[in-house]
Amino acid sequence: MTEFFPDVPQIAYEGPSSKNPLAFRHYNPDEVVDGRSMKEWLRFSVCYWHTFRCNGSDPFGAPTLDRPWDDGSDALDNALKRVDVAFEFITKLGAPYYCFHDRDVAPEGSSLSESHANLDAVAAKLKEAQDATGVKLLWGTANLFSNPRFMHGAATSPNADVFAYAAAQVKKAIEVTHSLGGENYVFWGGREGYMNLYNTDMKRELDHLARFMHMAHDYAKEIGFTGQFLFEPKPKEPTKHQYDFDAAACLNFIRQYGLLDIVKLNIETNHATLAGHSMMHELEYARIQNSLGSIDANTGDMLLGWDTDQFPTDIYLTSQVMLVIMAQGGLAPGGTNFDAKVRRESIDPVDLFHAHIGGMDTFARGLKIAAQIRADNALSDFVKERYSSYDSGIGRRIEQGQASFSELETYMLEKGEAAPNQSGRQELLENIINQYI
Amino acid sequence: MTEFFPDVPQIAYEGPSSKNPLAFRHYNPDEVVDGRSMKEWLRFSVCYWHTFRCNGSDPFGAPTLDRPWDDGSDALDNALKRVDVAFEFITKLGAPYYCFHDRDVAPEGSSLSESHANLDAVAAKLKEAQDATGVKLLWGTANLFSNPRFMHGAATSPNADVFAYAAAQVKKAIEVTHSLGGENYVFWGGREGYMNLYNTDMKRELDHLARFMHMAHDYAKEIGFTGQFLFEPKPKEPTKHQYDFDAAACLNFIRQYGLLDIVKLNIETNHATLAGHSMMHELEYARIQNSLGSIDANTGDMLLGWDTDQFPTDIYLTSQVMLVIMAQGGLAPGGTNFDAKVRRESIDPVDLFHAHIGGMDTFARGLKIAAQIRADNALSDFVKERYSSYDSGIGRRIEQGQASFSELETYMLEKGEAAPNQSGRQELLENIINQYI
Amino acid sequence: MTEFFPDVPQIAYEGPSSKNPLAFRHYNPDEVVDGRSMKEWLRFSVCYWHTFRCNGSDPFGAPTLDRPWDDGSDALDNALKRVDVAFEFITKLGAPYYCFHDRDVAPEGSSLSESHANLDAVAAKLKEAQDATGVKLLWGTANLFSNPRFMHGAATSPNADVFAYAAAQVKKAIEVTHSLGGENYVFWGGREGYMNLYNTDMKRELDHLARFMHMAHDYAKEIGFTGQFLFEPKPKEPTKHQYDFDAAACLNFIRQYGLLDIVKLNIETNHATLAGHSMMHELEYARIQNSLGSIDANTGDMLLGWDTDQFPTDIYLTSQVMLVIMAQGGLAPGGTNFDAKVRRESIDPVDLFHAHIGGMDTFARGLKIAAQIRADNALSDFVKERYSSYDSGIGRRIEQGQASFSELETYMLEKGEAAPNQSGRQELLENIINQYI
Amino acid sequence: MTEFFPDVPQIAYEGPSSKNPLAFRHYNPDEVVDGRSMKEWLRFSVCYWHTFRCNGSDPFGAPTLDRPWDDGSDALDNALKRVDVAFEFITKLGAPYYCFHDRDVAPEGSSLSESHANLDAVAAKLKEAQDATGVKLLWGTANLFSNPRFMHGAATSPNADVFAYAAAQVKKAIEVTHSLGGENYVFWGGREGYMNLYNTDMKRELDHLARFMHMAHDYAKEIGFTGQFLFEPKPKEPTKHQYDFDAAACLNFIRQYGLLDIVKLNIETNHATLAGHSMMHELEYARIQNSLGSIDANTGDMLLGWDTDQFPTDIYLTSQVMLVIMAQGGLAPGGTNFDAKVRRESIDPVDLFHAHIGGMDTFARGLKIAAQIRADNALSDFVKERYSSYDSGIGRRIEQGQASFSELETYMLEKGEAAPNQSGRQELLENIINQYI
Repeated sequence: MTEFFPDVPQIAYEGPSSKNPLAFRHYNPDEVVDGRSMKEWLRFSVCYWHTFRCNGSDPFGAPTLDRPWDDGSDALDNALKRVDVAFEFITKLGAPYYCFHDRDVAPEGSSLSESHANLDAVAAKLKEAQDATGVKLLWGTANLFSNPRFMHGAATSPNADVFAYAAAQVKKAIEVTHSLGGENYVFWGGREGYMNLYNTDMKRELDHLARFMHMAHDYAKEIGFTGQFLFEPKPKEPTKHQYDFDAAACLNFIRQYGLLDIVKLNIETNHATLAGHSMMHELEYARIQNSLGSIDANTGDMLLGWDTDQFPTDIYLTSQVMLVIMAQGGLAPGGTNFDAKVRRESIDPVDLFHAHIGGMDTFARGLKIAAQIRADNALSDFVKERYSSYDSGIGRRIEQGQASFSELETYMLEKGEAAPNQSGRQELLENIINQYI
Repeated sequence: MTEFFPDVPQIAYEGPSSKNPLAFRHYNPDEVVDGRSMKEWLRFSVCYWHTFRCNGSDPFGAPTLDRPWDDGSDALDNALKRVDVAFEFITKLGAPYYCFHDRDVAPEGSSLSESHANLDAVAAKLKEAQDATGVKLLWGTANLFSNPRFMHGAATSPNADVFAYAAAQVKKAIEVTHSLGGENYVFWGGREGYMNLYNTDMKRELDHLARFMHMAHDYAKEIGFTGQFLFEPKPKEPTKHQYDFDAAACLNFIRQYGLLDIVKLNIETNHATLAGHSMMHELEYARIQNSLGSIDANTGDMLLGWDTDQFPTDIYLTSQVMLVIMAQGGLAPGGTNFDAKVRRESIDPVDLFHAHIGGMDTFARGLKIAAQIRADNALSDFVKERYSSYDSGIGRRIEQGQASFSELETYMLEKGEAAPNQSGRQELLENIINQYI
Repeated sequence: MTEFFPDVPQIAYEGPSSKNPLAFRHYNPDEVVDGRSMKEWLRFSVCYWHTFRCNGSDPFGAPTLDRPWDDGSDALDNALKRVDVAFEFITKLGAPYYCFHDRDVAPEGSSLSESHANLDAVAAKLKEAQDATGVKLLWGTANLFSNPRFMHGAATSPNADVFAYAAAQVKKAIEVTHSLGGENYVFWGGREGYMNLYNTDMKRELDHLARFMHMAHDYAKEIGFTGQFLFEPKPKEPTKHQYDFDAAACLNFIRQYGLLDIVKLNIETNHATLAGHSMMHELEYARIQNSLGSIDANTGDMLLGWDTDQFPTDIYLTSQVMLVIMAQGGLAPGGTNFDAKVRRESIDPVDLFHAHIGGMDTFARGLKIAAQIRADNALSDFVKERYSSYDSGIGRRIEQGQASFSELETYMLEKGEAAPNQSGRQELLENIINQYI
Repeated sequence: MTEFFPDVPQIAYEGPSSKNPLAFRHYNPDEVVDGRSMKEWLRFSVCYWHTFRCNGSDPFGAPTLDRPWDDGSDALDNALKRVDVAFEFITKLGAPYYCFHDRDVAPEGSSLSESHANLDAVAAKLKEAQDATGVKLLWGTANLFSNPRFMHGAATSPNADVFAYAAAQVKKAIEVTHSLGGENYVFWGGREGYMNLYNTDMKRELDHLARFMHMAHDYAKEIGFTGQFLFEPKPKEPTKHQYDFDAAACLNFIRQYGLLDIVKLNIETNHATLAGHSMMHELEYARIQNSLGSIDANTGDMLLGWDTDQFPTDIYLTSQVMLVIMAQGGLAPGGTNFDAKVRRESIDPVDLFHAHIGGMDTFARGLKIAAQIRADNALSDFVKERYSSYDSGIGRRIEQGQASFSELETYMLEKGEAAPNQSGRQELLENIINQYI
């Protein structure tokens, strides 16, 4: 069998002092942290689109990446060959999961039935590869944004035929995800939004989107697919304004249309920051509503206004992410998917390894740091004490729903002024975090 | 009686060709537009804080504005005198409404009871002034952000006493609003958010906020106040992250905690844009959820990252705003409140008139433009046609909940490809709008 | 001869009341405004890349635009056919100028000499078309960003061969521009910047860029090309940081490397706002340094962080632009180039006409408004008076370089405090502008 | 003598494993790094305004900070007492330098001469305190933005008297700086910009600013002050647009008006990011133009659009800063000034210590990391090799000014295509940096 990365060995853990760029310095899959192996906590996933389909083109330039195995065509053979490349890569890297869009793995045909057939053909090979390697499918999804038919949206298109097409495509993608043992199914509504409000009936579009989601749920139930449904918030790009702007917009829609038991969120760092939130905010906001399902691990460039999908290498970021994930006891059945791509100038196949190794090591460090912070109650003791006025007295009456405005007014008229506030100690807490970095 | 603006006449409508800077060129209060007077459509309100309390200070500089009537003190007499100034201004301007925070109109005392007494004293004078002039109260609210006690939040403070204080203060503010015939009551949670997630229990804070709102509602019912409750979204400033980030975040909270029948939204332009949305988006998003209650009419500077609260002078903006407001048949009991301040360098009292006249004229032009666009169906015909595929056939089945994924797949497998898309015609629609500007 | 836009008539001026979407409502080419025809003031140019080469693809989607004449290939025949399309379009539109990159008009060959030959072949046809129609070339430029060889920059590439290639390409592009009577030559350094500072020698790169510009100037002199050289500032995209960030960064470079007599600026609205400036700022800043050469007329979406290159339809914007341009007596030999593209969803050929007509009409309105403001001295009288303290006394001594710190201290110690400031009157001035809109 | 921080000991170095929040874990002043003590490399400075004058007020709220020694008045006695507080703080902290604005240390009087006298009185005490403690003055500056007289600018005010006042004030501030042995003098033009272009004559304002700087230089020469003059770039806030937008805008002005030998730059992180640049960019850009003079060490919140002036606690940031500073062999006579303030909620005096200790430790870590990266040539070897094509052959001819466009075209026509590019290796380099964090 052809080896596509002949110069890259199986990536192994060598410890922090290693200078080997093709080794892990922190990610030691079976090392136990807070009662669970790193592998289980992190549930890393390689994404098919960026890692195996990205060619380095950008809006101002042609493909740059050297991918000697890929003839650049949309032929089925080329697609099947990519499966071999992908599983060699994922296996050498040691990631337990992967993810894909239907059109990443198999070419779109000249009709829907041909597209279905192409997908079936590749799915069969993916199944074999999964069985042969033990790599599993974290989630599947359908690409409802690249084909020109989706220019005005998919489930929110003003063209009912496009809705129907999207339904047929998602039906198939759920089937394939199901047949490959996928543990989740993601909906990223890349074109579910608008370019301009003058030509848009927002109400009608959102009603359609809700209808679509209920149909999807009905169908999943029908075929026994019990994987988690996930919305992936993003504020804009490619649309001017995407309906799933952020976790709040998603959850408002989810509540409004009765989808709370059906859909959780797949939160991405770069999407969070484009929406004006920190990643930690979006995670925590979803978590406390019991809606944090999975994450897309990447980072943006805070000085750029588009989705750069860079690999995460900031230890502060990954520590914050892991603090939230550990607070909810892990992400399963979700995982940590590298929705990230090498820079257009990182043209060699080996750059794909550098990138993933860096991301995995950075998350492993974040995990260890978060675990230590939690073990020491370095933040939680402070927070518990900070809110302790609600644990008794008037605070307890408030929390338990016993107090009324009149009671509280009486209480405060007597007291005249509230008890003094305590310092928020932000600088001290930031210093404490630095003790763990 | 002292006249505070002796050189300013009653502002009157003089028509578009007038060059008089102290006259309306477009706002003609009793002129009927689409079946209703301009006054009724626009329901203009002057805000007390910016117009009568702003002194021109900013984070880098001391007060600049020349307000000869104001001794700059927190004395009750000074506060009572300001009532005269305010009603002379509002009356000369010809605005039918005004708005205030409790601490704008009356000074904070050395204890809660003194603060209550101060507020009562000023409220009595406000009542007289309202009766004498016919000016009405659009909404009241409580300032829960300026006093240091609110540094960590009010209803979301980790200090239960601060929650109690806020409750007592809002109780009083609702009473005063009720007694002055206020048609709405606004909650702007300026400090309801966080500076840092390391020291914050977001879940507990949001639970407290919901508890607060239910108490407020209970109390309003108790005293028979039937004015509309309004949340005012803002993403940040003064906090790093405010819970009422945007309309979506507010509505998610409102739904989550069972407040949908109780609270609508007061949408502000500058807050919308700081959150990454156009004003038209926020209005339309709220409208289609039956939650658009009132607006804060101002504008930001799109190149600045803070709330500049400038007076609206962009006709495109006001036309878009009025398109949405007319689509829901007006804002009542809400209105158009100028939450806007003169620039720090616009130091003369007369600048207050220029500013409000400009804002009112710009909205009047927006109203007339929107009315004409609607009369001509200049946008709506296009939009109706654009979605017409949902009015029959497969589209109708989708909308009516009759279609399933399986049916749609069968339909599309037969067809092979969706019917072609139509052009979105954004450029043409923008040109059409320009025909009305 | 084939007609490519058979349903589109010659676009004519029909006046403001026309509802014809394929007519000018404001642009009346020979109408005289302030002593010069609209045509001369505005010097409109159609850009080849967006208008004839854009296919509607974006980073998330495939081509959408219906261009029946284009087979999508890179064949020379296809390129030659596009010349016919372009000149039919420009002629029907009535624009006097066009612009191009070398690679827009002619395909890149398999070697530099083949690319040169292709360009020669198309240039010959362009010359014929210019002669036949009277359409002229506003400026030419070389595409030094699309080909993968330019991934790390062109004149600033760490690869000296890429510098050499860029030199050869620009040499040819200047020759062709010269031979076609081009009145300017533009340098947009799309990849002259960096993705990451860890791998970058900024000093060496900037030195190389300066060297490149001097070589270009030497060559232009050698062949007698006297067209104006223009830098086009842009802050980022595709690079993380472009050296020509804004007008200030360009001018600092220009001064540092002795290029002040050689290079002026081509200012673009969307680039200005991405850099944190208003278009009016960038224009005025360049103008007062005698460096405003030409403009790229478009607009961005202020809520999006990338270059949307939309057609300008905001009358405020074009009025501001024309105020500056009229203040320097026009742009010649520069012009108003529509570096703007139809939205990806505006798929019909006719949308190209709507878009350009809207842009031209909006600029024509801006011209008429600016002319009227200037005729009335509506702003200038205020500004003149505002600075009048420098026209005599201590102010005059300061301006004439006669005052020293010691003299000014003595003066002010005596006075104790400066004379009072006047109101900045921003609101009044904005209202005055609205009188002209 | 009263002790103002009785519970705070002299801050000492205790090493990385210390958990003492009032000790250094990394900053060990006399530890030698790359041939120089930490103290010499870092030259830390405490700023008077944030640390001793900030009261916690913000645009939405009143003062919050507990400063028991300060009666909040503008009395001279209060100002003199603050000197004792300041020097106890700086000494306990172990910072070798401090900085101030004239109006931070001494109150503005009712006339210029009274202000001068106040400043003299405090300066005398500052001199004593410096002598007694060995703390030195890094730089002085004049506050030309807080007083209402500066609302329209100082040197760029349209009011010539304000220019004169500013001149008198700066004259005095330079004298005081000189008498206190200040090593630099800073110009931050907080109001040197505009709020609106309609009322602004940018050319005249910039000419005045240049005139002002030349007078300042003349006066410094006259009195023998040889400290470095520094401009501090900031893009906006409080103005809509500040003339000293970023390093490029400053340097363009500096070159245009012949100030290159007279003025260098004081670069601040938060100002850099507000202008759309990374701190590392601004530093490197200034450095390669021989214009990096000093730094204001802080950080902003990348999700907020205003100057938050937070203490720097990000090790990536300080490592990048120190990489540039070490590349130019240090900052002297400039230094590392903490232009940073505790959060409004960090109300205790001890929070000032936490904040500065965190900032100093983070910089010390940055210094050690940068030194190790440099010792290992971890980045520089890669960069050197990356540009090596310019070290010989055609690249060398280009750099040496021997090549022409014609020669390069001939060279490339022969070759046909440029030599292949190498990977930019961004991901690998980021991983390498993480090996040092």
